[in-house]
Amino acid sequence: MKKIPIIKSRRLRSTPYTDRIESNGVSGYTVYNHMLLPVSFKSLESDYQHLKKFVQVWDVAAERQVEISGKDSAKLVQLMTCRDLSKSKIGKCYYSPLIDDKGFLVNDPIINKLAEDKWWLSIADSDVIFFAKGLAAGNKFEVDIKEPNVNILAVQGPLSDDLMAKLFGEEIKQLKFFNFKYFDFKGKKYFIARSGWSKQGGFEVYVEDNAAGQDLFDYLFELGKEFNVRAGCPNLIERIESALLSYGSDFDNRDNPFEANFDKFVNLDSEVNFLGKERLKKIKQVGIKRKLMGIKINHNKIDMYCEKTLFDDNNNIVGYVRSATYSPTFNQVIGIAMINKPYWYSKDQFKIEIDEKIFVGTVCDLPFI
Amino acid sequence: MKKIPIIKSRRLRSTPYTDRIESNGVSGYTVYNHMLLPVSFKSLESDYQHLKKFVQVWDVAAERQVEISGKDSAKLVQLMTCRDLSKSKIGKCYYSPLIDDKGFLVNDPIINKLAEDKWWLSIADSDVIFFAKGLAAGNKFEVDIKEPNVNILAVQGPLSDDLMAKLFGEEIKQLKFFNFKYFDFKGKKYFIARSGWSKQGGFEVYVEDNAAGQDLFDYLFELGKEFNVRAGCPNLIERIESALLSYGSDFDNRDNPFEANFDKFVNLDSEVNFLGKERLKKIKQVGIKRKLMGIKINHNKIDMYCEKTLFDDNNNIVGYVRSATYSPTFNQVIGIAMINKPYWYSKDQFKIEIDEKIFVGTVCDLPFI
Repeated sequence: MKKIPIIKSRRLRSTPYTDRIESNGVSGYTVYNHMLLPVSFKSLESDYQHLKKFVQVWDVAAERQVEISGKDSAKLVQLMTCRDLSKSKIGKCYYSPLIDDKGFLVNDPIINKLAEDKWWLSIADSDVIFFAKGLAAGNKFEVDIKEPNVNILAVQGPLSDDLMAKLFGEEIKQLKFFNFKYFDFKGKKYFIARSGWSKQGGFEVYVEDNAAGQDLFDYLFELGKEFNVRAGCPNLIERIESALLSYGSDFDNRDNPFEANFDKFVNLDSEVNFLGKERLKKIKQVGIKRKLMGIKINHNKIDMYCEKTLFDDNNNIVGYVRSATYSPTFNQVIGIAMINKPYWYSKDQFKIEIDEKIFVGTVCDLPFI
Repeated sequence: MKKIPIIKSRRLRSTPYTDRIESNGVSGYTVYNHMLLPVSFKSLESDYQHLKKFVQVWDVAAERQVEISGKDSAKLVQLMTCRDLSKSKIGKCYYSPLIDDKGFLVNDPIINKLAEDKWWLSIADSDVIFFAKGLAAGNKFEVDIKEPNVNILAVQGPLSDDLMAKLFGEEIKQLKFFNFKYFDFKGKKYFIARSGWSKQGGFEVYVEDNAAGQDLFDYLFELGKEFNVRAGCPNLIERIESALLSYGSDFDNRDNPFEANFDKFVNLDSEVNFLGKERLKKIKQVGIKRKLMGIKINHNKIDMYCEKTLFDDNNNIVGYVRSATYSPTFNQVIGIAMINKPYWYSKDQFKIEIDEKIFVGTVCDLPFI
């Protein structure tokens, strides 16, 4: 794949940490919610090995917040997601697929409940703000919808607890998964959740003050020396091995939540009212014909910039690869693919073209590890 | 500015023409509607000089379409824009700011009317599809909303008519500005509008068949040799000189249409019902306190990756530059800035920091030429 530079502009927003991550050697960008998101530093594989052993600081400001507040905010938030939030609690984070009226996926944010009438949807890469505004206007809901100036720093990796405790005190180690609380450091308050886009453990700091976030970035590096801290970012290898899905890559607005394996977040038997509920009931009743599964390919290199088709021996379509990477753990290419039903349990090999050669592979369950 | 490569993925969609524009030497990308959009080939300035003299073929597939069809489609489209579309005609293109219920801008698409009940919104960089879906669901409109597989090739520059006539016949020269029609070439039908994101004249071909589009791309180059055809793209210098605004760069969801100089597209006295109408009436009555204007700076280089502040001699804020570039025509930096009211007619110089030095400049009207 040719290396072509990204050209910055106000539209492709920089973050409060952009200067710092560039000093730390960012070597590739993607764009996510109209904002720069680092993709690699030393190399995908070096970053991956480091993330699994030590601790990294990530500029994930591109995980933007949609703030929904006001009298009807709970009603609007519930209308947008198939997950039953009727028993949701303040201080907790809820991974919640958003669904349109046809039963298709719009996004898969983490919904943070800040108050009974204040929510932050920490979104994947689509403009949820306009979906919320359209729904609110159409339903004449009394709500305020905005994108607050929140720029997340994630601290990820097995030594995250130790590093964070050095800054915020031992108490932070007690914070449970998908819970958030405010913690103090040098006279500033930080909203911190135990969450993050890796399965190596860690925290996300929702920074509301740019200068405080920049200070925090610097302190994390200063105090993190003994833990071999590095700048990092969501890592393609780690996230595919862990089957952390990416809206836009693995699923999109032409897929429904059952196809994306979100069954446990689709609460059709609940009393709550959400968009597409009747449509999803019908889809469930009829049954889906394809779903996201893992694949392993007998090869050690793949560049993904669009879907790749998988064929069986008779050249029937097995499915489409949507994300893939070389995995050092399996010493082969692994990926996430939308697989047609006849092949869900097949042990037969499929064929795939990579760089004008044919390779073979097999379908498997997710996650890989 | 450091040159950092963009990392492709399925989420940052390639276009049917990506291989071709890379063979033609694309030297920078941006991301627009989750899709790759070329920013430069030889250099900004070389591309600019060529565009003003000859003819270029542009991969602007990133100008995505939101197709709205069905019984209530006209009602929904009108609800989204402050421009009165009640007398709109099939076969015409309407530049139409989209507005939310608070009176803020959502996008500034060209709305193509294909039938009384079928519209294509050719959008700038925000997910209008989710705004439309939210509004439709909230209002219980009977509409179908989707992103069709349309990938625009633009042919721009003063020799566009000659090149296009060689392919589609002399008749295409009769096509009026902001009108569209279907034209034949080698047995395929192409939806062609006289439009495009430059003021150098030309056409946009809304290609619905990937292979036909790729063929067209190749034919345009083959038949365009005598016109010195090159691959090009929307050019920062040309578009700023012409004051063609860019959603996300020059204005966004925190600005209203008056601040963006869209007055003639805000039809408050019409009978039609659109979102934010009452709010816009109030804004108009009170009057705006800032608006987009031109600026000229006594310097020959600027890198823009976020807003830059303009100060007066007493260090009061004059406004914020949102896009800027060196202009060979003016032999200085020109830009588009949100200027506070006290400075609209000021002849005084403002100060701006560029690369840690202070430069001076003045406010001026748009467009520059």
